[in-house]
Amino acid sequence: MNLLAVDSAGKSAAVAVLRDDTLLYEAQCSNGLTHSETLLPMIDTALRACGLTVADLDVLGVTNGPGSFTGLRIGLSLVKGLALPRQIPCAPVSTLEALARGMAGQGTVVGALDARRGQVYWAAFDLETHARLTPDAAAPVADLQAFVQSCKKPLFFVGDGAALCYNTYGQLPGTAPCPPALRVLRGAGVALAARAVWESGRCVPPAELLPDYHRLSQAERERSERTKQQGETTDAI
Amino acid sequence: MNLLAVDSAGKSAAVAVLRDDTLLYEAQCSNGLTHSETLLPMIDTALRACGLTVADLDVLGVTNGPGSFTGLRIGLSLVKGLALPRQIPCAPVSTLEALARGMAGQGTVVGALDARRGQVYWAAFDLETHARLTPDAAAPVADLQAFVQSCKKPLFFVGDGAALCYNTYGQLPGTAPCPPALRVLRGAGVALAARAVWESGRCVPPAELLPDYHRLSQAERERSERTKQQGETTDAI
Repeated sequence: MNLLAVDSAGKSAAVAVLRDDTLLYEAQCSNGLTHSETLLPMIDTALRACGLTVADLDVLGVTNGPGSFTGLRIGLSLVKGLALPRQIPCAPVSTLEALARGMAGQGTVVGALDARRGQVYWAAFDLETHARLTPDAAAPVADLQAFVQSCKKPLFFVGDGAALCYNTYGQLPGTAPCPPALRVLRGAGVALAARAVWESGRCVPPAELLPDYHRLSQAERERSERTKQQGETTDAI
Repeated sequence: MNLLAVDSAGKSAAVAVLRDDTLLYEAQCSNGLTHSETLLPMIDTALRACGLTVADLDVLGVTNGPGSFTGLRIGLSLVKGLALPRQIPCAPVSTLEALARGMAGQGTVVGALDARRGQVYWAAFDLETHARLTPDAAAPVADLQAFVQSCKKPLFFVGDGAALCYNTYGQLPGTAPCPPALRVLRGAGVALAARAVWESGRCVPPAELLPDYHRLSQAERERSERTKQQGETTDAI
């Protein structure tokens, strides 16, 4: 089984090629360029390094949210485009689960992505089994307190929102450090999460690959607020 | 500080670019090709992805052993060649420490490389501080038993010799699993180990970058055996 894994949900981009249990290739990149410039050359490099073409792939895995709206659209569009001609099965994976699956150990791992406006997208997983402990959610960092105090220790934070979490909870007993360079979303994590989707028969045809934004976009939020205000104005008249 | 990290000591090849605390780029490759084919294109891709040239690098880190004799020579020659014209400081790092530094957590991590003939190159580190617990050594897998029974748990094995160790010790209490795809030597691990060398002032000029093979090569071993036999023959006459 040859699986190509792709991520562009957060600040970094990642790719990996997994053949059964063997990680043939993996790369992560945080070069400050947009994913539309970075991602396709990374995929091309990965496939060439493994001597593969798209025709050799059995599954395409991709993070479908949460994450940056534009980032998700770039990754999903690209994977859809690669998968469509041959109808290669696609494995949509939670960005937060992909973060957790890139790390091995014992304890609890929280995948956290910077959702701006003082919020993080977050979810917690058992570090050894990678079993999910909480659903993917968007919340102010302060709202994680009850979970942090109750969870199985040691507790690690990974992802581009980990620094926000360590700033708030890093000094609590049982919270354990993870060096910033090891908090990046690994292509291997996307690949392992995608393999789990494939093994459990939850792959979808390319046309059914959809983003899961977990909250309204800025445009939708602003329209909703405008509509609400207009409603209130109408009510007042 | 821009640091380029390179590894070709084992079956896989790895590169990374670290800028201070930020991992700009990382790639690992186990494509079955020889390191002489794989490594230079990987470095080229890494530097291009970061918009850097060799002139922008402040430190070059490279695994200098233990590992495959040919692999070590390829990595060291390449790094020497890149560093020499500008006399860029070089950080030689233990392959086993680089393996350990690619993983975060709590407990103990053993970096293990397949040394053939039923042996592994191995060394143990504290997983949280990455403090070294045992020196780099080549030994039969069976010889690790006393350490495995005495060490701080949970205990993880990483590297291309990890499967040999898990086959022998995986069922012991306190030994914890690490998925095969996460046992690869990470470029980030080489980079973090090299940064520690640089921070402690142990970098060397390119000309002083030397391999540390940890045992005699096959040719040297066979010559030594021949010499010994000839000596015994002479003694008998």
